[in-house]
Amino acid sequence: MSKKLGRQTFALACPPAVAGWGSIVGKKEGEGPLGPLFDRISTDSYFGEKTWEKAESVMQQFAVTRALERAGQAASCLDALFGGDLMNQCIATGYAARALGVPFFGLYGACSTMAEGLGLASLLVDGGFAAWTAAVASSHFCTAERQYRMPLEYGGQRTPTAQWTATASGAVVLAQNGPGPYVTHVTAGKICDPGIKDANNMGAAMAPAAYDTIRTHLADTGRSSSFYDLIVTGDLGKLGCSLVTELFRRDGVELSNYTDCGVLLYDLERQDVHCGGSGCGCSAAVLTGRLLGELQAGTLQHVLFCGTGALHSPVSLGQGESVPGICHAVALAAAR
Amino acid sequence: MSKKLGRQTFALACPPAVAGWGSIVGKKEGEGPLGPLFDRISTDSYFGEKTWEKAESVMQQFAVTRALERAGQAASCLDALFGGDLMNQCIATGYAARALGVPFFGLYGACSTMAEGLGLASLLVDGGFAAWTAAVASSHFCTAERQYRMPLEYGGQRTPTAQWTATASGAVVLAQNGPGPYVTHVTAGKICDPGIKDANNMGAAMAPAAYDTIRTHLADTGRSSSFYDLIVTGDLGKLGCSLVTELFRRDGVELSNYTDCGVLLYDLERQDVHCGGSGCGCSAAVLTGRLLGELQAGTLQHVLFCGTGALHSPVSLGQGESVPGICHAVALAAAR
Repeated sequence: MSKKLGRQTFALACPPAVAGWGSIVGKKEGEGPLGPLFDRISTDSYFGEKTWEKAESVMQQFAVTRALERAGQAASCLDALFGGDLMNQCIATGYAARALGVPFFGLYGACSTMAEGLGLASLLVDGGFAAWTAAVASSHFCTAERQYRMPLEYGGQRTPTAQWTATASGAVVLAQNGPGPYVTHVTAGKICDPGIKDANNMGAAMAPAAYDTIRTHLADTGRSSSFYDLIVTGDLGKLGCSLVTELFRRDGVELSNYTDCGVLLYDLERQDVHCGGSGCGCSAAVLTGRLLGELQAGTLQHVLFCGTGALHSPVSLGQGESVPGICHAVALAAAR
Repeated sequence: MSKKLGRQTFALACPPAVAGWGSIVGKKEGEGPLGPLFDRISTDSYFGEKTWEKAESVMQQFAVTRALERAGQAASCLDALFGGDLMNQCIATGYAARALGVPFFGLYGACSTMAEGLGLASLLVDGGFAAWTAAVASSHFCTAERQYRMPLEYGGQRTPTAQWTATASGAVVLAQNGPGPYVTHVTAGKICDPGIKDANNMGAAMAPAAYDTIRTHLADTGRSSSFYDLIVTGDLGKLGCSLVTELFRRDGVELSNYTDCGVLLYDLERQDVHCGGSGCGCSAAVLTGRLLGELQAGTLQHVLFCGTGALHSPVSLGQGESVPGICHAVALAAAR
């Protein structure tokens, strides 16, 4: 039986249940509008570790462990963990997977990682391969800044289009059955590259990919955008968000139910984050801090969670390349 | 129906067919014992591009395109491409996926990437999600050296335990049906970390992971090591290979049919590569240059292809961390 729908969408015959989720954020994210919803807020940017890189790894361990607790399971139940982060060689994830001691598939999807991992983890359960799987993603402002841009001590100015890399991690545990919410569809993204070469304008670089994947998802499933209570990208920020809205408007589609995790995570006016949040941890934390809880409570019935990633590096930009964007969409439903 | 076997193995109910494969290598790899078997050997380390990083991306495009040609398909047939490389943010793969224009899942598994991607691509086909999938991996001596160690111009000495990062890429295209060879099982690896902190001794760092995954695979499937005509890791090199042999010997198991892609790719005596080859491209090229052809010809009936990766970074080692190893095993059979 084919579970392929249209061009790029996988329909899950027996939608896996989201059995647990966990979130952890830094001080700034805890001071944002979603602060009260996270499982843990650390005022120490080192999270008790000696380096920011180790801190990010510990954040992932916390998120997965908390997700397992909510699911009432031990790590030993996991047939597969999918995870990734922004650091070179994804070390936050590698060392977290070492500590967790579970079968592990490493991902690199930049800020699309949470959606990519959630999607693949769902396919393994629905495909009959796994009873329990998990997905995790993280980012840390301090590890990202010194790797992608400047050492923090340099005190560089930020451009108006810049986003703020979230210090955050989120994890999800999936099971064959449970009270939900459920993963019903996964739309695998293709790369779209509008030719942006400015590393401080990720929203514009990724917006066409978000538009392409959302449009494809709606065509593949035969759904209209209004089917969803919420279509949420992560993380385009304010500018990228307005570009997606504009791209749909050109098609005659008014997205009244659309927002972005980078816009939700911070108070954009008060918290000096310019265009909003970014980083793998941003959408992971918004998903696990707010969206899954609302789906469980039934205040949201249908959510299209669209992870957006920019697959460049400082080296590729230095060699004159543009920023390729990708977006993977995962459809979540409160009931099967 | 559960397709989980034992602790970590996924059994494919209707083993996907390897419908095509492609390989491309650099000059040194072309001068090695497998030289005549590769689809293309480039004597230009830039492969016609302006930078080594762009060259590596072009190598991936060639490998996937060649694999699709062998399968008699266009890129548009692909429901998903899994790929990765060693570079920061996996840029060789990101830009290759942009050029190919197919649904793309980015991986980071270091040198285990080919096995990780081949495994996941197989699960999507067997799970009924995809009719056609592909996996690709690459490495380039010059991009890896300057990123992980020293600029080539520095002319640093290599230690005796060092391996040589292969300039190579390999890709595989999978289909629901075809004359084979077939992917029958996927064993997902857990991280094993023996505490090695020497970035020039990857073989020792990864050997326990290879031992753990092979042992688990044999236990999960109820097979003895002699079931396989060939058990092949990639890429432990000569030293890691001897450590795996020794670890099995302690269990009373003599691995008479075991070797390593890093040992196969070069003439270790003649080509000054110390312990042998490494890099995502090494096992990918040996798989697509030699192993799949022998399975197709029937000179090999059963092969256990075990991708081994070291999930560290220069930053993590600089912060005093050790090198975590992982190994994913994929069982290949000439007939279903």
